[in-house]
Amino acid sequence: MHRAATRLTKLIRRMSTESPVTPAQTQSVTNDANTVINQQKQSKKAAQTFTLKTPKGTKDWADKDMIVRSAIFDKLTGIFKAHGGVTIDTPVFELREILAGKYGEDSKLIYNLEDQGGELTSLRYDLTVPFARYVAMNGISSIKRYHLAKVYRRDQPAMTKGRMREFYQCDFDIAGQYDSMVPDAEIMKILCSGLLGLGITEFKVKLNHRKILDGIFQVCGVADEDVRKVSSAVDKLDKSPWEDVKKEMVVEKNQPEEVADKIGNYVKLNGTIREVLDILQKDEILTANASAKEGLDEIETMLGYLEAFDVTKYISFDMSLARGLDYYTGVIYEAVTEQSAPPTDALEKKEKAKKSKKNADDDASEYVGVGSIAAGGRYDNLVGMFLGTNSKGKKAPSIPCVGVSFGVERLFSLIKQRQALIEKIRPTSTQVFVMAFGGGDNWDGFLAERMKIAGMLWDAGIESEYVYKKKTNPRKQFDAAEKSGCPIAVILGKEEYPAGEVRVKTLGQGEENEGKLVKIENMVDYVQKKLEELKVDGKSEVERLLQAK
Amino acid sequence: MHRAATRLTKLIRRMSTESPVTPAQTQSVTNDANTVINQQKQSKKAAQTFTLKTPKGTKDWADKDMIVRSAIFDKLTGIFKAHGGVTIDTPVFELREILAGKYGEDSKLIYNLEDQGGELTSLRYDLTVPFARYVAMNGISSIKRYHLAKVYRRDQPAMTKGRMREFYQCDFDIAGQYDSMVPDAEIMKILCSGLLGLGITEFKVKLNHRKILDGIFQVCGVADEDVRKVSSAVDKLDKSPWEDVKKEMVVEKNQPEEVADKIGNYVKLNGTIREVLDILQKDEILTANASAKEGLDEIETMLGYLEAFDVTKYISFDMSLARGLDYYTGVIYEAVTEQSAPPTDALEKKEKAKKSKKNADDDASEYVGVGSIAAGGRYDNLVGMFLGTNSKGKKAPSIPCVGVSFGVERLFSLIKQRQALIEKIRPTSTQVFVMAFGGGDNWDGFLAERMKIAGMLWDAGIESEYVYKKKTNPRKQFDAAEKSGCPIAVILGKEEYPAGEVRVKTLGQGEENEGKLVKIENMVDYVQKKLEELKVDGKSEVERLLQAK
Repeated sequence: MHRAATRLTKLIRRMSTESPVTPAQTQSVTNDANTVINQQKQSKKAAQTFTLKTPKGTKDWADKDMIVRSAIFDKLTGIFKAHGGVTIDTPVFELREILAGKYGEDSKLIYNLEDQGGELTSLRYDLTVPFARYVAMNGISSIKRYHLAKVYRRDQPAMTKGRMREFYQCDFDIAGQYDSMVPDAEIMKILCSGLLGLGITEFKVKLNHRKILDGIFQVCGVADEDVRKVSSAVDKLDKSPWEDVKKEMVVEKNQPEEVADKIGNYVKLNGTIREVLDILQKDEILTANASAKEGLDEIETMLGYLEAFDVTKYISFDMSLARGLDYYTGVIYEAVTEQSAPPTDALEKKEKAKKSKKNADDDASEYVGVGSIAAGGRYDNLVGMFLGTNSKGKKAPSIPCVGVSFGVERLFSLIKQRQALIEKIRPTSTQVFVMAFGGGDNWDGFLAERMKIAGMLWDAGIESEYVYKKKTNPRKQFDAAEKSGCPIAVILGKEEYPAGEVRVKTLGQGEENEGKLVKIENMVDYVQKKLEELKVDGKSEVERLLQAK
Repeated sequence: MHRAATRLTKLIRRMSTESPVTPAQTQSVTNDANTVINQQKQSKKAAQTFTLKTPKGTKDWADKDMIVRSAIFDKLTGIFKAHGGVTIDTPVFELREILAGKYGEDSKLIYNLEDQGGELTSLRYDLTVPFARYVAMNGISSIKRYHLAKVYRRDQPAMTKGRMREFYQCDFDIAGQYDSMVPDAEIMKILCSGLLGLGITEFKVKLNHRKILDGIFQVCGVADEDVRKVSSAVDKLDKSPWEDVKKEMVVEKNQPEEVADKIGNYVKLNGTIREVLDILQKDEILTANASAKEGLDEIETMLGYLEAFDVTKYISFDMSLARGLDYYTGVIYEAVTEQSAPPTDALEKKEKAKKSKKNADDDASEYVGVGSIAAGGRYDNLVGMFLGTNSKGKKAPSIPCVGVSFGVERLFSLIKQRQALIEKIRPTSTQVFVMAFGGGDNWDGFLAERMKIAGMLWDAGIESEYVYKKKTNPRKQFDAAEKSGCPIAVILGKEEYPAGEVRVKTLGQGEENEGKLVKIENMVDYVQKKLEELKVDGKSEVERLLQAK
């Protein structure tokens, strides 16, 4: 203990002189902590000599935020299960070589673990590569799996917009050889059901196809080896105007101006699937390209299924959608809302932030948008990258996959804006506060008796609390009950309890409501009945939060 | 893509020559994967040229295992909430200095992240230190919090005994200044309810008190500076006989033989709380020691509360329990079952393993026990280690804490032994299989129609699937339904469906059961009614699994 204490003192001295916690981080915890947590403000002077924090780009989640977040998890999980999904859980770190060569330029954002002897490992960057590794490793030919877990990216954080270095992904993927576009269409249905299930109705799913995009680049005259970099320029169209993207193509990526202009005519195209398909299918130059033709046929097939699922109204077929990741091979999609885009004055704000702050990359919340709230695509070759060749040098066939990933923190930041409903959420589930009323010389506070009653309620699955003091007065007990927000009190009276009875009282109905005296053996049943009566429309606050617009 | 593919090929070559996956690891995935996953056995030759694995001491969780594990989580979460707990989620890595000096010798087991510029961080070793950091950082004076999350220890794994390098902990802790032993007793109640709630009835909670133990060492003549190391020798009494522990004290830890003998008389003591208290309270030498006296008084107080909670029958007051961690200051406890202890021939097996294996520390499953299945204690100074001093040099008072941690993987390995019930668990939740029957020249397979019906079921929250093929015959659809284990089929007949009707059939009741033809608009209601009827005692398989002994 002595050595530990000395180290701590050193740590305290060191930490107080460097990297103070950013206001956003402390506030995010403090703001919501007022309901269950009794804040004991440290004197300002004490706070100055010592600062504790979480690592950059990470935060603690607590209180109401946890209730809202787990409601999001439950809703998405329910939908994933409804579609026949099974869940897997992979380690938070993978052998480093599993992740290598999967993320293009973004590989620099991977967190590595220190070499402490043994294998070299890295924190996972997404859930897709571990899934592909799992499928390949176990020789699986078909699976529908969902996975809700944290992933890690050493990126520039924008905390208030839900962009963090440690963040949750909720993925659903279908692996296996099936009739064309059948699983793809189901994934689109899951994407839409997921957002609608969270009460998000004003969203748009941008849809495109890598093969169409490749075809477009080919017919516009982009060399095969340049397709990737031209594609990554196109990918910026959601943040930058066409003029900037064109400039990047011509100046940075060495494309002739006429090639860029031709691309420009295509990537500006968007509308309903039917509208855009009609235009492209009439384009004889494009349909003569094998890749584009294949992509267009697949979208045509998919359209029929999307109509069966009644989700075409949410979809915009958008030639400007390119998606950054290397591994996509077919349809790609991205759900956005109004808040996905950065503010219109983002560039100005970014410049200003750079000048005013010592460390410009501290937090980018001011000048970035929420980004896409769900996204995914088809990736037919990723599993194959993990499969070996047999003795004849023949490679095992890959397992085609298609999937979607929901960005929980981003969805959370949208749902948090439902102020009126958020206010009604309680961080605890406590339903019953057990109290004792008495007085006089021989009054001992009935602590053991309160424990006994609480024990009966717990054993019946009813959330209950009591004041952790031997003796306490009615006022303090009512205050504690109010603070925890629980709707019912069970009161042990000095005379009533020994006679085998307790008083069950609904809280918040004024002093004149005296509640009802019930036999101890009937208490649990009576409380259960009362709790049922108190539900509004049979729905909890959290259910109403997610259903509300 | 090209570069990625080249890297992969290199990886494949390299991996095939080193560290083959241990049989335990591959099997743990493969064994349970037969229900939903269609195994496509790779040719043996292909498997030899390529091996994928998860990092040492980690594994993938899948299929039934995930269902059982999340049932454990749900049960424990329900109990934590019933006791008024709120949950928090802290980052998986902490600033390295937060963890420093908290784990004694075990600090060497901490995983560090690579220094990639920026802060130095490490993966969390437990959930207790991050909790204390959270409480201190936010100036919290009282909180009841639960936290279910993974922790990381670079220890020797024993995979089949649930001892891994990445494993879950489920913690409940009460922080705050309260009347003596009130929260401590509630934690004991939670410990017992948690195990009983999982259908584990044959367990024993060993209870001891650090202050009594310190008093014992003092009255036996151990010097203050030797208390820690003598205590860690005592801690081995669950694995080794007294003779070995005594030898360690005398030979390795330089205690006079008579000191060791005196300690021996104390640490052999165990029994009900009342029995052991009676013996120790009559021991005038011990009760004259201030530390021991304080500890005995606290246990006496606690006994009354434990009686109110009706849990004394599970508790053994055991002087040999010492617990390794530095930070405990009051009561300590550890729940064990018969399988907690290592096998009686553990030493022989260990020696044999060392001789026979090239790398002896690969897996220790043969010669270790499951260990404690839940454990905890009071730690009053840990939060204070994170609190600063004010301008007058006065240290902020610590926040006293007491808590319990459930070892999920260990509980899981016990529950997995309920074979008959495990067999009935399905990895998917699918309830309805949507099929189409037809034939003839103009028969197109009703794929879009099956999608439409499945969409109606999904929107009503009913888990449904269909075969991902345009056309498929009845046999294949029934096979798929049987494989997924779902109880109901909705059948779209070539003539019936266009007439607005579908057939709802309960599966597994023989060919003669033709089901019932219902109007499409009544289908959802009818299916819901049928599903309710099919439940046994209104309980799911998973509920029965946890309740059964």
